[in-house]
Amino acid sequence: MRARHKPWADDYLNEQKEYVILDPDNYKGCWQTAFPKQQPIQLEIGAGKGQFITGMAKQFPNRNFIAIEVVKSIIVSAVQKAEEQQPSNIKFINQDAKDLRDMFGNEEIDQIYLNFSDPWPKNRHEKRRLTHKSFLEQYEQVLKKEGKLVFKTDNQGLFEYSLASFSQYGMIIEEVLLDLHAHEDPTNVMTEYEEKFSEKGQPIYRCQARFPK
Amino acid sequence: MRARHKPWADDYLNEQKEYVILDPDNYKGCWQTAFPKQQPIQLEIGAGKGQFITGMAKQFPNRNFIAIEVVKSIIVSAVQKAEEQQPSNIKFINQDAKDLRDMFGNEEIDQIYLNFSDPWPKNRHEKRRLTHKSFLEQYEQVLKKEGKLVFKTDNQGLFEYSLASFSQYGMIIEEVLLDLHAHEDPTNVMTEYEEKFSEKGQPIYRCQARFPK
Repeated sequence: MRARHKPWADDYLNEQKEYVILDPDNYKGCWQTAFPKQQPIQLEIGAGKGQFITGMAKQFPNRNFIAIEVVKSIIVSAVQKAEEQQPSNIKFINQDAKDLRDMFGNEEIDQIYLNFSDPWPKNRHEKRRLTHKSFLEQYEQVLKKEGKLVFKTDNQGLFEYSLASFSQYGMIIEEVLLDLHAHEDPTNVMTEYEEKFSEKGQPIYRCQARFPK
Repeated sequence: MRARHKPWADDYLNEQKEYVILDPDNYKGCWQTAFPKQQPIQLEIGAGKGQFITGMAKQFPNRNFIAIEVVKSIIVSAVQKAEEQQPSNIKFINQDAKDLRDMFGNEEIDQIYLNFSDPWPKNRHEKRRLTHKSFLEQYEQVLKKEGKLVFKTDNQGLFEYSLASFSQYGMIIEEVLLDLHAHEDPTNVMTEYEEKFSEKGQPIYRCQARFPK
């Protein structure tokens, strides 16, 4: 996802202390203290402009949400959405999710969402895909036992790859949908990208998988 | 798949002793003796009119093939194809594959193919789907360790169900293709049904999964 350079982004993010966590490593193991209510923490990696995470925060006030997005000029849009809606259960991290274990303690996270992650279609970029086993190792460590990974994409190649990657890692695939929008799911919160592509009739794939006990 | 009633089918099948095994239970544990060459045995369950299995037998002369089909008026077409092509590495069984363990010994089979199996879309018929765990138990027992199941279908619901069923059973999904014919695979042998539906532009799904060690 591309966005115009926003020279004011740095200052803006530094000011939004209610929503933006500038020193996530310092919260490792104690993320509950960042929120007013102690409740299960769910994480989105690659939150983009934040439509998904702010929609989820609204729909599920009894969960806490953390959104990670590396692109500064994009995450500002997400933080702006939060500023407007004033949820108390959402925090943003503007960092590369290179190693989640730097930011989160073991079993600190209840569920992880990957939405329309970069497909990195070339074989030589396989390791960059967020469903590559090196990332699954991180997810397994920071997730609660039997914690779930919920993955949506419109990219056929990435979805095929990811199902095999989950299974070969030893994860249990609980649900596969090959055309998410053909099913009624009032709890599904769409990302900006999902809204745009599903309107064009493109099928959206979703998979829910969990790590073994 | 429906076919006209063929009153001559019984007599015909009884006469084709070279291809039709009338007493499969008697071959349990000694299927190699049914073939001229001792080589890995692969099994198709629900072989229909036999285009797949006769094509495979031709393409892979170093494998033995067994095709099971319950509908008499359909399997005769498969046997007729074999009669014309005279392969030495294929046998037919006209029985319901209710319990494969009656017909096959432990680890007697190298690979199992399910092609365009009946989707049984109603929840109350779940147990009849050939990818239900009660069937997976049979496959696991008759297949060699790490034996593979290769499954093709155009039915979205059945494919979604089957991926989750394989994974929940503990199988490892090695490959998923959501549009088989978008890939070059010169070894893919099409069934009659596959030929018809892929011509209409319908995607064909394929999955290869193995049982754990």
